[in-house]
Amino acid sequence: MGESAEQIHPKKAYGWAARDSSGVLSPFNFSRRETGEKDVTFKVMYCGICHSDLHMLKNEWGNSAYPLVPGHEIAGVVTEVGSKVEKFKVGDKVGVGCIVGSCHSCDNCSKNLENYCPKMLLTYGVKYYDGTITYGGYSDTMVADEHFVISIPDNLPLDAGAPLLCAGITVYSPMKYYGLDKPGLHVGVVGLGGLGHVAVKFAKAMGVKVTVISTSPNKKKEAIEHLGADSFLVSRNQDEMLPAMGTFDGIIDTVSASHPVLPLLGLLKTNGKLILVGAPEKPLELPVFPLLFGRKIVAGSAIGGMKETQEMINFAAKHNITADIEVIPVDYVNTALERLMKADVKYRFVIDIANTLKPTSSI
Amino acid sequence: MGESAEQIHPKKAYGWAARDSSGVLSPFNFSRRETGEKDVTFKVMYCGICHSDLHMLKNEWGNSAYPLVPGHEIAGVVTEVGSKVEKFKVGDKVGVGCIVGSCHSCDNCSKNLENYCPKMLLTYGVKYYDGTITYGGYSDTMVADEHFVISIPDNLPLDAGAPLLCAGITVYSPMKYYGLDKPGLHVGVVGLGGLGHVAVKFAKAMGVKVTVISTSPNKKKEAIEHLGADSFLVSRNQDEMLPAMGTFDGIIDTVSASHPVLPLLGLLKTNGKLILVGAPEKPLELPVFPLLFGRKIVAGSAIGGMKETQEMINFAAKHNITADIEVIPVDYVNTALERLMKADVKYRFVIDIANTLKPTSSI
Repeated sequence: MGESAEQIHPKKAYGWAARDSSGVLSPFNFSRRETGEKDVTFKVMYCGICHSDLHMLKNEWGNSAYPLVPGHEIAGVVTEVGSKVEKFKVGDKVGVGCIVGSCHSCDNCSKNLENYCPKMLLTYGVKYYDGTITYGGYSDTMVADEHFVISIPDNLPLDAGAPLLCAGITVYSPMKYYGLDKPGLHVGVVGLGGLGHVAVKFAKAMGVKVTVISTSPNKKKEAIEHLGADSFLVSRNQDEMLPAMGTFDGIIDTVSASHPVLPLLGLLKTNGKLILVGAPEKPLELPVFPLLFGRKIVAGSAIGGMKETQEMINFAAKHNITADIEVIPVDYVNTALERLMKADVKYRFVIDIANTLKPTSSI
Repeated sequence: MGESAEQIHPKKAYGWAARDSSGVLSPFNFSRRETGEKDVTFKVMYCGICHSDLHMLKNEWGNSAYPLVPGHEIAGVVTEVGSKVEKFKVGDKVGVGCIVGSCHSCDNCSKNLENYCPKMLLTYGVKYYDGTITYGGYSDTMVADEHFVISIPDNLPLDAGAPLLCAGITVYSPMKYYGLDKPGLHVGVVGLGGLGHVAVKFAKAMGVKVTVISTSPNKKKEAIEHLGADSFLVSRNQDEMLPAMGTFDGIIDTVSASHPVLPLLGLLKTNGKLILVGAPEKPLELPVFPLLFGRKIVAGSAIGGMKETQEMINFAAKHNITADIEVIPVDYVNTALERLMKADVKYRFVIDIANTLKPTSSI
């Protein structure tokens, strides 16, 4: 007989979990492993609510394991380190993003692309090496191999910095990889949500000209005056779109609902790149002629590797980039998820775990 | 009143033209311009039949102007050069591909990417700067600005070399641009027609491992034994496809009929590139998850610039790369087009213009 999860993971923990695909969260007692040789254990202070938490909670990608404790934008303070931990000590500000494991031996891992390792393990909702299910950051404590722990610089606040661990790296990585980080380039950002608003901030810090492309004209003032975008296009307004055709070096498309890509391809210059970081469930309709006659590309990108995530956090700290957040108590989380579904948040909910998550007798 | 085409273009010429979207070709008398200062006039010896000729003849892309003299894989011998021509002299072996004009001042032109110039002029079926319609290589003579004339090295035969001017550059250019020309890489070629079979030859000469991917198992022997491909996959055979998943650095997809791209994306490694060079009329269904989780790209490419076309021809000559052709007399052209529609050719028809095209009294 194998050991039970409680035997493998003897340390009591508590958080909020969904029990089924209704996705409704409620208090949940569980356990975590002892701090291993290379592990960092930390007290969770804040955890961001990512749009993908919604998909996972409702099992919309078909791979959710329940009980499901979401949360992969986790920031906190180290409480214990294993004997072989080199990078962290008790009291350090740290974070964990979307990944807590990878094989360390494949081609991707050898290139610091743990995010594309075929054996990559997500921070919550998947089976860990020891057979237990991974639990995310809607919980009091976190334990992870130091390889997957990010050091958070002192000047970066833990609450507004937490969302960078997913939303930040998701937009930073493709801007670097696809060469859209060069001063003077013109980059579009489609969708002004959790990902889009930090994409604008990173792009501005990189020195590129940023245009926000949105279906909603009432986001213009906010995009330009508050977030610092250089210009704004209403995607349904032909009078705005037509003069902008052929003027973008690249576009970061953060929209996860199905949407037409033809107008976006039209906005690109020759050799322009449309980078998808949102994940529509249904296939997109891809017209081929605009790709050919302009040597354009449609590409994808998913979060980033650990080395690059640390680089992104350091870049954010240097340039004072944080997410715009609405801090909520944990018992507001179900309401927050409903509001998130309606895009009713500017721009990221962050749960104040340390001050609002209390032990409970519920199971 | 403007001048007539015959006044602007006083030199008699003849060829075969379609008069309407039936696409049926018949003898046609027309005229070409005098050799201008920077022009090269040449006797057409051979002209390849490209699959796009079919689309243009039947006005399937909606932009055909009739009478339509097709042909953009044109090889011949120089008969006259203008006073300011620097690169060519009478007797030289030359070729003209898909392009006979561009603006020379836009960003693309300044980067030797005339093929992506917004004012690029196709070799046949479009309005030239002087208001006349461009006529292609199914004709006795050709005249073009030397900028758009390619020098054909002595060891490259004009008949089997002609198709390289379109089919060759169409596959060579993306292999270079997308970095698929590095020895040791694994590149797939989808579709073993006019484009695909030269893609295999170029890729092998570049030192990459080549796998042909086809719906038809009966092309395997030919692909491997005759064309030199390293391996062969039948795209409908899951027993072959599954073990090949995640093993390709890039795929050159030459198929212009609508087809599923999901299996092709699956074949790619992380950072793999699916390059479309065929032009399906209907949009492709693009699943987004495989792009994201593997940072893959779907990209397009259309022919190549003049500098790169010359580079490609020189590379072909150095490595003895030619198209596999079936040489036909011009009066076989309608039959050849019917056979081409059924993919019944290995792998390119080339019209023997010099020996079979005769003057006619037809108009």
